[in-house]
Amino acid sequence: MVPRYARPAMTAIWEPEARYRIWFEIEAHATEKLGELGVVPPSGAKALWDWWATNPVIDVAAIDAIEAVTKHDVIAFLDWVAQQVGPEARFMHQGMTSSDVLDTTLSVQLARASDLLIADIDALLEAIKRRAIEHKYTPTIGRSHGIHAEPTTFGKKLAEAYAEFTRCRARLVAARAEIATCAISGAVGTFANIDPSVEEYVADKMGLEIEPVSTQVIPRDRHAMFFATLGVVASSIERLAVEVRHLQRTEVLEAEEYFSPGQKGSSAMPHKRNPVLTENLTGLARVVRSAVTPALENVALWHERDISHSSVERFIGPDATITLDFALARMTSVIDKLLVYPERMQKNLDKMGGLVHSQRVLLALTQAGLERDASYRLVQRNAMKVWESDGQLSLLELLKADPEVSAVMSAAELEDKFNLDYHFKAIDTIFARVFGAE
Amino acid sequence: MVPRYARPAMTAIWEPEARYRIWFEIEAHATEKLGELGVVPPSGAKALWDWWATNPVIDVAAIDAIEAVTKHDVIAFLDWVAQQVGPEARFMHQGMTSSDVLDTTLSVQLARASDLLIADIDALLEAIKRRAIEHKYTPTIGRSHGIHAEPTTFGKKLAEAYAEFTRCRARLVAARAEIATCAISGAVGTFANIDPSVEEYVADKMGLEIEPVSTQVIPRDRHAMFFATLGVVASSIERLAVEVRHLQRTEVLEAEEYFSPGQKGSSAMPHKRNPVLTENLTGLARVVRSAVTPALENVALWHERDISHSSVERFIGPDATITLDFALARMTSVIDKLLVYPERMQKNLDKMGGLVHSQRVLLALTQAGLERDASYRLVQRNAMKVWESDGQLSLLELLKADPEVSAVMSAAELEDKFNLDYHFKAIDTIFARVFGAE
Amino acid sequence: MVPRYARPAMTAIWEPEARYRIWFEIEAHATEKLGELGVVPPSGAKALWDWWATNPVIDVAAIDAIEAVTKHDVIAFLDWVAQQVGPEARFMHQGMTSSDVLDTTLSVQLARASDLLIADIDALLEAIKRRAIEHKYTPTIGRSHGIHAEPTTFGKKLAEAYAEFTRCRARLVAARAEIATCAISGAVGTFANIDPSVEEYVADKMGLEIEPVSTQVIPRDRHAMFFATLGVVASSIERLAVEVRHLQRTEVLEAEEYFSPGQKGSSAMPHKRNPVLTENLTGLARVVRSAVTPALENVALWHERDISHSSVERFIGPDATITLDFALARMTSVIDKLLVYPERMQKNLDKMGGLVHSQRVLLALTQAGLERDASYRLVQRNAMKVWESDGQLSLLELLKADPEVSAVMSAAELEDKFNLDYHFKAIDTIFARVFGAE
Amino acid sequence: MVPRYARPAMTAIWEPEARYRIWFEIEAHATEKLGELGVVPPSGAKALWDWWATNPVIDVAAIDAIEAVTKHDVIAFLDWVAQQVGPEARFMHQGMTSSDVLDTTLSVQLARASDLLIADIDALLEAIKRRAIEHKYTPTIGRSHGIHAEPTTFGKKLAEAYAEFTRCRARLVAARAEIATCAISGAVGTFANIDPSVEEYVADKMGLEIEPVSTQVIPRDRHAMFFATLGVVASSIERLAVEVRHLQRTEVLEAEEYFSPGQKGSSAMPHKRNPVLTENLTGLARVVRSAVTPALENVALWHERDISHSSVERFIGPDATITLDFALARMTSVIDKLLVYPERMQKNLDKMGGLVHSQRVLLALTQAGLERDASYRLVQRNAMKVWESDGQLSLLELLKADPEVSAVMSAAELEDKFNLDYHFKAIDTIFARVFGAE
Repeated sequence: MVPRYARPAMTAIWEPEARYRIWFEIEAHATEKLGELGVVPPSGAKALWDWWATNPVIDVAAIDAIEAVTKHDVIAFLDWVAQQVGPEARFMHQGMTSSDVLDTTLSVQLARASDLLIADIDALLEAIKRRAIEHKYTPTIGRSHGIHAEPTTFGKKLAEAYAEFTRCRARLVAARAEIATCAISGAVGTFANIDPSVEEYVADKMGLEIEPVSTQVIPRDRHAMFFATLGVVASSIERLAVEVRHLQRTEVLEAEEYFSPGQKGSSAMPHKRNPVLTENLTGLARVVRSAVTPALENVALWHERDISHSSVERFIGPDATITLDFALARMTSVIDKLLVYPERMQKNLDKMGGLVHSQRVLLALTQAGLERDASYRLVQRNAMKVWESDGQLSLLELLKADPEVSAVMSAAELEDKFNLDYHFKAIDTIFARVFGAE
Repeated sequence: MVPRYARPAMTAIWEPEARYRIWFEIEAHATEKLGELGVVPPSGAKALWDWWATNPVIDVAAIDAIEAVTKHDVIAFLDWVAQQVGPEARFMHQGMTSSDVLDTTLSVQLARASDLLIADIDALLEAIKRRAIEHKYTPTIGRSHGIHAEPTTFGKKLAEAYAEFTRCRARLVAARAEIATCAISGAVGTFANIDPSVEEYVADKMGLEIEPVSTQVIPRDRHAMFFATLGVVASSIERLAVEVRHLQRTEVLEAEEYFSPGQKGSSAMPHKRNPVLTENLTGLARVVRSAVTPALENVALWHERDISHSSVERFIGPDATITLDFALARMTSVIDKLLVYPERMQKNLDKMGGLVHSQRVLLALTQAGLERDASYRLVQRNAMKVWESDGQLSLLELLKADPEVSAVMSAAELEDKFNLDYHFKAIDTIFARVFGAE
Repeated sequence: MVPRYARPAMTAIWEPEARYRIWFEIEAHATEKLGELGVVPPSGAKALWDWWATNPVIDVAAIDAIEAVTKHDVIAFLDWVAQQVGPEARFMHQGMTSSDVLDTTLSVQLARASDLLIADIDALLEAIKRRAIEHKYTPTIGRSHGIHAEPTTFGKKLAEAYAEFTRCRARLVAARAEIATCAISGAVGTFANIDPSVEEYVADKMGLEIEPVSTQVIPRDRHAMFFATLGVVASSIERLAVEVRHLQRTEVLEAEEYFSPGQKGSSAMPHKRNPVLTENLTGLARVVRSAVTPALENVALWHERDISHSSVERFIGPDATITLDFALARMTSVIDKLLVYPERMQKNLDKMGGLVHSQRVLLALTQAGLERDASYRLVQRNAMKVWESDGQLSLLELLKADPEVSAVMSAAELEDKFNLDYHFKAIDTIFARVFGAE
Repeated sequence: MVPRYARPAMTAIWEPEARYRIWFEIEAHATEKLGELGVVPPSGAKALWDWWATNPVIDVAAIDAIEAVTKHDVIAFLDWVAQQVGPEARFMHQGMTSSDVLDTTLSVQLARASDLLIADIDALLEAIKRRAIEHKYTPTIGRSHGIHAEPTTFGKKLAEAYAEFTRCRARLVAARAEIATCAISGAVGTFANIDPSVEEYVADKMGLEIEPVSTQVIPRDRHAMFFATLGVVASSIERLAVEVRHLQRTEVLEAEEYFSPGQKGSSAMPHKRNPVLTENLTGLARVVRSAVTPALENVALWHERDISHSSVERFIGPDATITLDFALARMTSVIDKLLVYPERMQKNLDKMGGLVHSQRVLLALTQAGLERDASYRLVQRNAMKVWESDGQLSLLELLKADPEVSAVMSAAELEDKFNLDYHFKAIDTIFARVFGAE
């Protein structure tokens, strides 16, 4: 976790104190159910909850000190709770193994992290939608291979992002379901020393599903799918970030990240206004993605479990969720405040001398009866002249003057093929598909 | 693609001829709809389908030869079809761009590949289920950290695999839905030169959903999610493969891959019977996973598209699906024919002198009134003696002889804690959760 | 391996026949040395070499047929050779294990592949150097964050690439040394059944170093380092490819990939001239890099070896080397034939109204006695006006007219700060560092 | 960075204070050289060094507060230093750009980190060597595919690790050289505003090489190579860790991690002694490796630089070096204190009824005149009986009783083939290769 790329709500999920609170809740709920089952006296759970009702401070340092001796985190925690609660605490953890607590806690943390991420995406979607509608009909050039292709609108570009993050939202919801399970099944998952109903009870109380069959741990294919999904979401952030970076290039400058008064772009070059937020997002996407491979490598634990996954998760659990939360929020801010320059978009659109309409002419020539190959050559020979003139010549004028073209199409017919609105007639259909009917 | 790790049905999906056949169908369906819309004469589609009805051979070499000149694959294909069909073919591809065909074709290929992979998983699930039920109550030692923990059953281990691959199946179904979309939206996705109803028509004919908004291409977050999912499935294969490899170790030998008569395990050591299939599956899992990162890197195409994703997909499209198909089938065969040795399982289970029952004793001592910490120390001091005797001493006998233990538990009570069936009482519950009620 | 991204010389290294030829040479050399040592009769090696001198065709299909029965590739090969050579062939492979042959063969293949890659880099370096010298003083704008920064020269940009690929060359030489070792040490690397002098003899004959200590195999940290190095080289290719792609953008257009007559950039848009080669190289870099992670995962083989690495290497051995070879050659061609447009470079350089000289002015103001912060604000307030004018205003004129500036610097002094040559005075030093003294 | 996997010396390198100290030194050395060159008054450097001689505390919070306003870290630092030093500080940073400082600082940090890592490896090598010599002739079974193969010695296994980490040491030395460069070349690397001799001077003072040609930054192929190398070293740690984990398995138990008194292996199972350190190292290897892909993705910065690499390096710079430092130290401790059980090694070696000698018999039969295939079948048919008896039958006795065998080899000749020392005759040669002549 790098503090400058972290926000408090997500970070809090991964603090030791938050973890210990979840541990306690799991242990106390389990003790309660064990009391109902008659395995331990009901007084056990009562003592725990009574203490909890005093809203006790979790003394992380004290627990750490015990762990330094026992070299076992859960035992250290249980010892510390026993010190606070007294002898009734001995009924805690009956028939449970450490992983029952640890893994279910991780599920709670990842589920809570998912909730924040989903809320982040909702905020991002709202920002994108607002700007998309604002620029629904703002003409801009569409580019393939970085080369001008055909006109589109800036709102349509944002509609693409909206559709992509809508998919990402659905993926995060599915990823949350992957990891929101509870396992309290004992040392090798046989429930030998604890009734399955305890698992069911705790799952219900903690807002989780039961894990149908566990080993000592919840199977790691679930976590692999979770982190792989974060990697996909990060890649979608990268895509939108790269788009903004391109638009802000000096030669393009169709949009810019908001630049606050007093901000210095460069220690050396006072004129610089750099797309540093989206460059940063490009890097953060790499960071989030770097969790995917170790999460995949974590799946093949030996037999009923080995602990190789644990250290990995201590890194990627916080890092991937905290960084993605930060990245989604930063992207929301970028989109929300993005400076958009429609005049520059139009200027860029015009700079190719009408070449962007070449396909339409090609099509029209074919419909006028020429063979496709002949049409292609006619358009290309004129298009190349415009291209080489760096936009000084006009494709429309050249075509009008080309006798082979004028033999099949009149000047008026040609002019009709250079109308920008022609390209936008389906924008409404696309918006309805993406944003739904208004 | 490495031929030895490939099966014909999956490989066929990726052959040039298969690709061209899909191209044709997309073009012909589109032409048909364009005919309905009055954009081209209905005779165009008719000519195409009439030729198609002759079941023509696709001359891959001829198309390649044209491409060598035009340096454009779709144009080469269209030229070749035009040579076969005649002038009516000029109505093909009206208002479409190459990517409309290429990307929709990739969708069809990946959807078909998904269908095979889902069928593979169904076969694997069936094999696992059969062996799980066969060994529902075959006792075996559960291991954490490679160390004996508590008893479980071999059927329960297989139930874990069944549950995991059931999840993988659901993930594959979701992955299929991710990539089964059709985009026929033109050079920058505005439908400028083609009506959205053509996309809808072709999607329906090809068994796809429409892509709500595309650029020049179908957005690559879809493909990233697809390949990430294959990586997760591969990791689950690795997990089961590693389990078999462990079970076949000389010192463990609880199960073995089937060894056919005449097979030589080693050119030098005639006695060797090696788990080469599951070692191979471990490697193949790495291969499938290696598609994940490039697929994630493919998402951030520039503006309305660049073509950097294409070469990547030429590798990982076939490689990941063909290899995973092979791996699933190989795993099915391994499980189906796995030699299982219950006697050896029992022998291994017994070799620790009863240490595997230590937790149960610990729990019983606590319930008999000792504090947890005291119980732990009592069990541990006897357990350590057994451990150091390499299983020659019996934990039960040592406990009976320990005065601090006998002070709270009788010999009969102790003996009751060493009953194996105690561990299996929830197996039926687990099987019902995993396989459903019978 | 994807044929369109493969060149014959590299592909040939990975053909079955090439592999069998190396196998034979290793076996024959070993038999020869065993003959010298008196372990087998000298007639063994003689029979093998006599047959080899007839330049026999390797019947790959026949060997495959035997392997289909024995399920062991080396035994199948030995059987086939025995069929050709006769009874003297029984002295082959004495005391050896399959991996002695297989792993040493892989070393030979990777060493040969390295030689081709190093030659590829040499060709690339030559092309870069030629173009760098050609454009040593071609002014162009340097950009950070995609935003105009300060002037540089196009030759200096190419000098960066030259230095980078010079490093890549050194890395490839080191990577070659990593994997060019020979192990003939028996089933667990103890030389129990074969004298270490055989290994030394074969190593020398095959142009390899001995592996100081092997298990059954050559340790895979060597191969991991090899493939990691290819991944770095691929990333350097990506960097140069991305540079070209940026330069070819419509709005920038300072350079272009060579466009051959008759080439069609788009089936729909006849005017398109797309940087498809460098986009393709961007994708191929991802492909080569995808070999790195599985190669790292291959290191931790179990005990004296498991065979999980083998299937991985069947993919990444050919794929990574063939693809990188192709990519280096394609990059060489791109640089060699790159269309460079100095006029456009100058035009872009001028379009910011002199903002690119802002740092120099800042420095001069500080040297003229202003505090840094004051200087910065003075420059920035004028620079921002130029920026917002889209290059219509001139920084020089604004500064001249700013009374706080003119208070410390005269018009002539200011004009001197806008001289382009000022930026190029160290170009010669840089060239001497990179290319050496002429 | 996860504190439990961090050691102070490495962590200190990455603290803000350490970074600021390096920043200061670079700025002060540069100012000194600029004074020599007459660009600024010599009093500038003097003021800086005078202040530095007072051993001032770096007020990180104060610098952070300035950065919160300026949003630029280097400017914030310069402002703070100026507050401390007074007006003479304005001569700092003349002609430099932030990246000159930031990138050279990263080089210093990575070089220092490399020094620690190299020292770590030296300590690990020493521990491995000591244990290797201790167990030079401790017999143990060599295993391929997890299956008993032929005898080896435990010292020879450790010699493999020694050779591997010797290679890793050399790789780290090379990796250090990759990143130990200094760039002070200005905004686009042209030295427009600063003389190249400043770079040379600072490089020399900071113990770095000059960067022959830089852009705004040091090229990231260097860092990619650095982190890729860390990934290889991590994989070698994983290999040794996996070996220990296998040896500690209950059924194998040939070695064990040291188990301190009072340590609890499991909250539930008091008898457990788990290889948790090496399992942890397996996970930490995945963590270090996860830095490789983002480092490779960082290479292709746009033009003269974008800042996407920066956030990535804020994570992987500390995480990869701190984690690898911790892992190397932990591995050193594991090897140093490893409990080795030679009796158990012998017991395991004997448990296959002599099958481990099968290859030697095979060879002897061939040398006695049988064809290889016949020999193979003879050995295999007896070996299979032993195998199926679970080591109860003796291969030697079966061979003696097999008439086809006794027809060519006497009982005494057979017995000679079962001598363990036969396998160890080259151990001395191997040790001389690995550890050098004593």
